[in-house]
Amino acid sequence: MNTLTHFRLCPKSRSIRLALAEIGVETELAEERPWEWRETFLALNPAGELPVLALEGGLILCGAYAISEHFASLLQDREKEGRPAPLFPGRIEQRAEQRRLVDWFHGKLDREVTRELLYERVYGHLTPYRSHGPDPDALRAIRANLRYHLGYVNHLAHERRWLAGDDMSFADMAAAGHLSSIDYLGEIPWEEYPSAKSWYARMKSRPAFRALLADRMPGISPAPVYANLDF
Amino acid sequence: MNTLTHFRLCPKSRSIRLALAEIGVETELAEERPWEWRETFLALNPAGELPVLALEGGLILCGAYAISEHFASLLQDREKEGRPAPLFPGRIEQRAEQRRLVDWFHGKLDREVTRELLYERVYGHLTPYRSHGPDPDALRAIRANLRYHLGYVNHLAHERRWLAGDDMSFADMAAAGHLSSIDYLGEIPWEEYPSAKSWYARMKSRPAFRALLADRMPGISPAPVYANLDF
Repeated sequence: MNTLTHFRLCPKSRSIRLALAEIGVETELAEERPWEWRETFLALNPAGELPVLALEGGLILCGAYAISEHFASLLQDREKEGRPAPLFPGRIEQRAEQRRLVDWFHGKLDREVTRELLYERVYGHLTPYRSHGPDPDALRAIRANLRYHLGYVNHLAHERRWLAGDDMSFADMAAAGHLSSIDYLGEIPWEEYPSAKSWYARMKSRPAFRALLADRMPGISPAPVYANLDF
Repeated sequence: MNTLTHFRLCPKSRSIRLALAEIGVETELAEERPWEWRETFLALNPAGELPVLALEGGLILCGAYAISEHFASLLQDREKEGRPAPLFPGRIEQRAEQRRLVDWFHGKLDREVTRELLYERVYGHLTPYRSHGPDPDALRAIRANLRYHLGYVNHLAHERRWLAGDDMSFADMAAAGHLSSIDYLGEIPWEEYPSAKSWYARMKSRPAFRALLADRMPGISPAPVYANLDF
């Protein structure tokens, strides 16, 4: 059996859980608290980062980039046979746009919003080294950054059917990985971003999304609308 | 003609300059100071990040990820014909290892060292909004992180011919993009990391590296050993 080492609210882990469910790769989940730097985890991925996918055959794929591109290679042949659900569908121009956006979400959005927000509101809370609560100045800056990113997602969703074009791609899964994690914390004013909201409602209603909506963090309740398909 | 928008000391731009030179894609350079957020640059890449490659045919590739994977796709067919210099050579297991390391250098090393170091020592210096010099506490933390990364590169270079295995790959170019930029600033104690040093000497002696070694930043002289092949 394949095993995905993940953390419930880790946005990159979530993007890969969506991708594996969309392409039909069955996987067991093993949860890791990456801030504990456990030796067995570092032996699996010396970078100490999530997600990590251990394939049945023995191959270990470390990080969302290596995992997504591994399956992209395998699926490219499948696409030629007319089978569904590639991660980077279409022609080379479309794949460049999809990858530009994956980089936006897993790079820029992660750095400017999700990573910092999770540190302030979740990881910090769970780390024994930190006794004080979230820093209000940091939260203010993160929320301002979040609005800029929501505006951009709204713009993309307004112009296109899916974020990178006519077809759903790993760019949508990367965005949804981050936004679902931020939404769990009740930080997204959806009503101000109607096109982003309607895109996210479509993502949420996919069978691949169900497991994410069932996630609960001990000690941190999700926002009331988190698991609601009609939010 | 293809045009690469870059910044001289930007590590991701450097990794792509190396890659394009290695695979023989001729490109003009256009320099951008990304912290100026010029409108014409944001029209090219709304993320405001480097590098951006505008291909002769009109396609715009934003970011090292989209650029490297674009050429990886094109070169994969070339590899089947026995032609040289792919960015991700070998079998699917080797490509997973190469991508793990690209993610390490362009993700983790960038976040923990290069981005912060460039901000403290180069961008901050060039930005009109900042009048004070580098923050000594920040520099101390960055330098401690750098030693951890140099130790890891040294370990890889000790175990393997190239960082990801028997063949040179984009992982080496990503690492060299970052380390060359850090080395320009004289921050690398090479003598403490002999295997990393001997790997870097091999990278430096490649014809693709020459243009990088000729780079000079106005107002910031390179370290004496920067362009020296025998350092």
